[in-house]
Amino acid sequence: MSEKLGRVLLAYSGGLDTSCILAWLIEQGYEVYAFMADVGQEEDFAAAEKKALAVGAKKFFLADLKREFVTELIYPAVQANAIYENVYLLGTSLARPVIARGMIAIADQEGCDFVSHGCTGKGNDQVRFELAFYGLKPDIKVVAPWRIPAFYDRFPGRQALLAYAEKKGIPVVQTASKPWSTDENLFHISYEAGILEDPDITPPTDMWKLTTAPEDAPQEPQRIAIEFKAGLPVKVTVPADAKEYTDAVEIFLALNALGRKHGIGRIDIVENRFIGVKSRGCYESPGATILRAAHVDLEGLTLDRNVRALRDQFTTIEFSRILYNGHFFTPEREFVTSSIPASQRTVNGLVKLKLYKGNVGLYDEHESSMDELGGFEPTDTSGFIQIESIRIKKWAQANIRKGQAGVTPKDVYGSRV
Amino acid sequence: MSEKLGRVLLAYSGGLDTSCILAWLIEQGYEVYAFMADVGQEEDFAAAEKKALAVGAKKFFLADLKREFVTELIYPAVQANAIYENVYLLGTSLARPVIARGMIAIADQEGCDFVSHGCTGKGNDQVRFELAFYGLKPDIKVVAPWRIPAFYDRFPGRQALLAYAEKKGIPVVQTASKPWSTDENLFHISYEAGILEDPDITPPTDMWKLTTAPEDAPQEPQRIAIEFKAGLPVKVTVPADAKEYTDAVEIFLALNALGRKHGIGRIDIVENRFIGVKSRGCYESPGATILRAAHVDLEGLTLDRNVRALRDQFTTIEFSRILYNGHFFTPEREFVTSSIPASQRTVNGLVKLKLYKGNVGLYDEHESSMDELGGFEPTDTSGFIQIESIRIKKWAQANIRKGQAGVTPKDVYGSRV
Amino acid sequence: MSEKLGRVLLAYSGGLDTSCILAWLIEQGYEVYAFMADVGQEEDFAAAEKKALAVGAKKFFLADLKREFVTELIYPAVQANAIYENVYLLGTSLARPVIARGMIAIADQEGCDFVSHGCTGKGNDQVRFELAFYGLKPDIKVVAPWRIPAFYDRFPGRQALLAYAEKKGIPVVQTASKPWSTDENLFHISYEAGILEDPDITPPTDMWKLTTAPEDAPQEPQRIAIEFKAGLPVKVTVPADAKEYTDAVEIFLALNALGRKHGIGRIDIVENRFIGVKSRGCYESPGATILRAAHVDLEGLTLDRNVRALRDQFTTIEFSRILYNGHFFTPEREFVTSSIPASQRTVNGLVKLKLYKGNVGLYDEHESSMDELGGFEPTDTSGFIQIESIRIKKWAQANIRKGQAGVTPKDVYGSRV
Amino acid sequence: MSEKLGRVLLAYSGGLDTSCILAWLIEQGYEVYAFMADVGQEEDFAAAEKKALAVGAKKFFLADLKREFVTELIYPAVQANAIYENVYLLGTSLARPVIARGMIAIADQEGCDFVSHGCTGKGNDQVRFELAFYGLKPDIKVVAPWRIPAFYDRFPGRQALLAYAEKKGIPVVQTASKPWSTDENLFHISYEAGILEDPDITPPTDMWKLTTAPEDAPQEPQRIAIEFKAGLPVKVTVPADAKEYTDAVEIFLALNALGRKHGIGRIDIVENRFIGVKSRGCYESPGATILRAAHVDLEGLTLDRNVRALRDQFTTIEFSRILYNGHFFTPEREFVTSSIPASQRTVNGLVKLKLYKGNVGLYDEHESSMDELGGFEPTDTSGFIQIESIRIKKWAQANIRKGQAGVTPKDVYGSRV
Repeated sequence: MSEKLGRVLLAYSGGLDTSCILAWLIEQGYEVYAFMADVGQEEDFAAAEKKALAVGAKKFFLADLKREFVTELIYPAVQANAIYENVYLLGTSLARPVIARGMIAIADQEGCDFVSHGCTGKGNDQVRFELAFYGLKPDIKVVAPWRIPAFYDRFPGRQALLAYAEKKGIPVVQTASKPWSTDENLFHISYEAGILEDPDITPPTDMWKLTTAPEDAPQEPQRIAIEFKAGLPVKVTVPADAKEYTDAVEIFLALNALGRKHGIGRIDIVENRFIGVKSRGCYESPGATILRAAHVDLEGLTLDRNVRALRDQFTTIEFSRILYNGHFFTPEREFVTSSIPASQRTVNGLVKLKLYKGNVGLYDEHESSMDELGGFEPTDTSGFIQIESIRIKKWAQANIRKGQAGVTPKDVYGSRV
Repeated sequence: MSEKLGRVLLAYSGGLDTSCILAWLIEQGYEVYAFMADVGQEEDFAAAEKKALAVGAKKFFLADLKREFVTELIYPAVQANAIYENVYLLGTSLARPVIARGMIAIADQEGCDFVSHGCTGKGNDQVRFELAFYGLKPDIKVVAPWRIPAFYDRFPGRQALLAYAEKKGIPVVQTASKPWSTDENLFHISYEAGILEDPDITPPTDMWKLTTAPEDAPQEPQRIAIEFKAGLPVKVTVPADAKEYTDAVEIFLALNALGRKHGIGRIDIVENRFIGVKSRGCYESPGATILRAAHVDLEGLTLDRNVRALRDQFTTIEFSRILYNGHFFTPEREFVTSSIPASQRTVNGLVKLKLYKGNVGLYDEHESSMDELGGFEPTDTSGFIQIESIRIKKWAQANIRKGQAGVTPKDVYGSRV
Repeated sequence: MSEKLGRVLLAYSGGLDTSCILAWLIEQGYEVYAFMADVGQEEDFAAAEKKALAVGAKKFFLADLKREFVTELIYPAVQANAIYENVYLLGTSLARPVIARGMIAIADQEGCDFVSHGCTGKGNDQVRFELAFYGLKPDIKVVAPWRIPAFYDRFPGRQALLAYAEKKGIPVVQTASKPWSTDENLFHISYEAGILEDPDITPPTDMWKLTTAPEDAPQEPQRIAIEFKAGLPVKVTVPADAKEYTDAVEIFLALNALGRKHGIGRIDIVENRFIGVKSRGCYESPGATILRAAHVDLEGLTLDRNVRALRDQFTTIEFSRILYNGHFFTPEREFVTSSIPASQRTVNGLVKLKLYKGNVGLYDEHESSMDELGGFEPTDTSGFIQIESIRIKKWAQANIRKGQAGVTPKDVYGSRV
Repeated sequence: MSEKLGRVLLAYSGGLDTSCILAWLIEQGYEVYAFMADVGQEEDFAAAEKKALAVGAKKFFLADLKREFVTELIYPAVQANAIYENVYLLGTSLARPVIARGMIAIADQEGCDFVSHGCTGKGNDQVRFELAFYGLKPDIKVVAPWRIPAFYDRFPGRQALLAYAEKKGIPVVQTASKPWSTDENLFHISYEAGILEDPDITPPTDMWKLTTAPEDAPQEPQRIAIEFKAGLPVKVTVPADAKEYTDAVEIFLALNALGRKHGIGRIDIVENRFIGVKSRGCYESPGATILRAAHVDLEGLTLDRNVRALRDQFTTIEFSRILYNGHFFTPEREFVTSSIPASQRTVNGLVKLKLYKGNVGLYDEHESSMDELGGFEPTDTSGFIQIESIRIKKWAQANIRKGQAGVTPKDVYGSRV
């Protein structure tokens, strides 16, 4: 069959799924180029390239996106204390925009009318990839095989994929498949689906790939220091190793190594996906967890109360939701991030931390000055309280008139209403 | 001197400050009644009563407020995941409203026109107490000696208080004063002021009163289970001890004992006070930390996504701010808490936890069912993404028309504007 | 053809579209029952019933939902000052939940497995109806012909519908079709689509059905009074007519009559639909506009500042978005409306209004007492300002240290960052 | 008496109050310089200068701040649709920061250690002025006579001021004092206090200074056009007069003249002051009202839905509160305004308006293109609705299991909880 349908750039992982998708796309009549992004995951890129070409890809592209991943995605998330539903640090969400941008850049360069990916039809990543594609190149066409009945009806399970791979001469690694899916980058690794879909299943201890279990972490705490400028880490010092790191990517890798050793950054949660279903996810984000704790601590010392309150209620929450839902290349993301620099102007200083068995402790010497308590008299506070109480007294007087004074213990939920 | 000024109810602690205040109020011409609240702090109430009467109080009142503290203040805070500036669980803020209400009840009963307290003139607690007094009894008069120049000019330091105590025959405990202030109740203990005002001072290890240091906590994790109904804990099970707790106060005390043993719930932060100064505070909230982690986890399984998002952005943040700023007896508190029950209707289930050296791990078997991923087709998601992308494509088209397409790496902060 | 597919309850309007849909559903193999809701629109229900039965409906149901429309939907919207994108009072959005509930009640009673409607595939109403159906009866099946290719490909325009009507013997009213769509109920009438899709087209003056143009309204202002209890209108007095209205529906109809006469409540806007497209809509909401102005005014006099601020930022905005997007039967709607009563406890009083050529003026005598300015001393304000300025002075000192003091005129958008 | 206390710069108005304050400050021992700001109010500045020097001011300064008032304060407020408590356009709040900055610039230049003003001790303006002073020059000292007992006890009423004026030889204008206070600038005029404190008093018709009453406005509508770039007006066209305005100040004055003629921009409200009391205010903001209506309308056509929603809920509300409470020179103002430009990038186009007897009608031809409805299929919407309904169906299923399905009419306020 000729490539009559056009040229498609496929986000290729080297695994069984995307190899079968590659072969299937060729079978449908596409000319397929394969794309891999290096966002810090542990991967044999050379083997993947060889495999993609063997399966039939006409070209293979590897984009090293680690630095832009750190400086353009992770850094604003650090400054904004981004977090989804109180616990998830958004490691996968953060990587998707740079990968999508890398793909669109190659698609533009190589004249691909189509992009394709191997995301399932029930997850967040399909949404994140595709909205990013459209936000960058609105006329791009997307081929999502796991949402095309001709594909998913043909491959109802792993066995069908294996049979197809054999038929197409796709080499299959002989190790048994893990009973879950993972996504790894230099920010984190995630585990989901498979046996993890049952929230009553405790993940097997050997699932956790990045971090030592807190129980197995060193008995001795380790002390490190992180210096921030405008809310961003500019130097990490590890006295025990007599090491200093100042490069953005190296800082992240160094914090990862420290966090992994000390069992920091494991979570196991049930979260709400953009499409409205609940989903269980296990995550390891060692360096990111350390960095967030340090940043939040430094903001306590350096950020104005009202800026912090507004930033927490608006920027943190909205930026996190935008990232999670795949709305990075949108006008609302531009709007929300445009307020971040003004919030970080004063977030400068050194934070010293103690890492110990899953704990990130702030232990001393912040080297950032705190306001003193001076500049006002105790009698000023009397005036402040009198003014603050004006409307509260009015309310209390009205309650008393209605026989609803608050002295008697009563239900707190406003049952008087 | 006769008690010509009237009758004052003094919040008495048994310590040097409020004993001197008691004597000073009498000296000014007040008839003084002393009030103590039992909110779970470790205290020799009998000795305090004896001392108050010895110093000159005409009457002494002890109010056991533990149960209403747990059920009326702590419980809504648990349901709302209340937290101030990302880290502080609001232990002191939560106790002030019940103590103030206890005092106003006695002031009403005993015909006191005045209430008095020993809070400093630069802290939050003076505001919390007084706004609560005014919200309950708007015509109450407050005597705040630490904001009255005649008092604070006379007692510029501890020595002046000791001298006054000697002169007034006030018995002084011979143990050296701690170089910080504390506030304790069954939710937490706080440490602030004194040497802690310098954020570069690491608290001495013997300051921490409630919790074992994580380093010294048991090497063996401990497993427990908490059952929730409508977002509130109704049963705590401790298998190793073959114990079950179902009473509200006992549940809290049991979780405290477990948390203390395993080094859970220490924080050391710089926070922004209501009056606008920054302040360093150290806190131990063992049981509350466990309860919050369990509640947040269960909400992941049981709370609708949109309810959770609205509750997090509105109720959690506003209720926490209200508590911190002492606005409990206000119309806005009624307004905000009135939405809590509707958010907790579905928060039912069992959470199993592993406590280990400062960590609260969620380890398995939630016994609360999660949504299945069913009920829609992968092709539905295609439609969802198409609709979601409509306005994003329009934006991208406009960007392209203006030569501002997002493919080239660029600053994320909207510098194109 | 037998009715092998099952029984469907069709939201029937009596017009050409739903009559053709009725015939087409029968043709497909459904047994069709027709449903009409009386939500106050001007309609010949008897003629519509006759027509539905003539076209082939097996049964016809007319539900008078006016009272529940007013008391269950409109009233909370009045209390919450619901408004979408600053201008739209949500008249269509408010009617959809009661109509959907009325349909589901009949569907349950009559054993219909399907419901059907004539909404287009690009508007909000399809979403509002269907999400309401699912929120009430999650296993209901929806037939939306305008999203079924077999239907919309067959009927690409009005001519095809007319031809089908002729073939099926459907009586067609001979008056020319209006070049726009309308939706009418006792809250408002809307006009959209057709020639209105071009925002540069001024609506023809004879489009506006409900209200007199301000230019043609009476030269004499008219004075009326509205009495509110807990934020709801309980009495409307029209002195010129010596009339009083106290029934919920009658109050609404009386305000409508007054507003229509005086040219009140016309708007012509471009709004953002839930599905992300922009849409031009013209609306007349005479009574609702008067009621909102009166309610907002009374809240100025009676609502606590902080409750008002929180309600405006949270309840008003979120409830309006929920209504607009068709999320009425959802947990988030329950959550959001649960806070409304606590906000309206104090909203009691009489508001006097002057209606004149499109203006709703508040003219005098509120008969609701305002706080007096008493209860504090000017010197208290000095203390308040000193405390308020603590953190501002710190910020200014830091600016001065950095040479960034604000005295020189400069750009306000934080360019110093 | 020598000027031993130092040099004070007094915000001088030329009226009785600040003339007496001027004399009193000299009496206290200050050297007084007088300051007036021209922010567009109708005023005889030359007469005021003469009077100030006659009363004893050593120097007199007049600062023309009209342009920076428009471009630095009013313009961001226009872009953000700033409004307080739904109705007040913040005219006085907007002028205070530029006046305070003008004063601090002169105080710096002339070596004044003190600034003074004649604001009352119960209003917002004292707070706005003083927080602005401190935010610009944290060590400035403020003399606020109406909060100094020695002053306000001496001058309990107008008679005492008149007697003092006679004694000090201060010329008093013979016209009777108005029974209210006013503040005027090119954005608006306000009326408050005096007889207006009683909300049951209808303002006398001759109080309104700027605008014709709608009843007396022309019978003929007038059509104008406003062109916006990045959310700011760049050209106003008045066809009937064959006039065009492109200068920032002239645009504002032209819109004012139009609004005044057509009775636009009167409001009469009760608002909540920063210090917690309620206050009745009447305002005329003719040009600002027209500009806001036009800007809101254009945003409907040009602003992305999500940007608009976030901007409305965050920027509009927070910036308005910041302005009202006098927090302009603060870090939170920098934070909030830093997001405005990103929200206005697309707000370009022409708006045509019809002014008629208090109404601002949008009548046709926006000359700004709207999105078309294309780019998706009706079947896509089916997928969108299916995905949107996933969590709603789960909720409905749970309700049905609990016997709480929503079909039966019931109270909307979540009473099932």
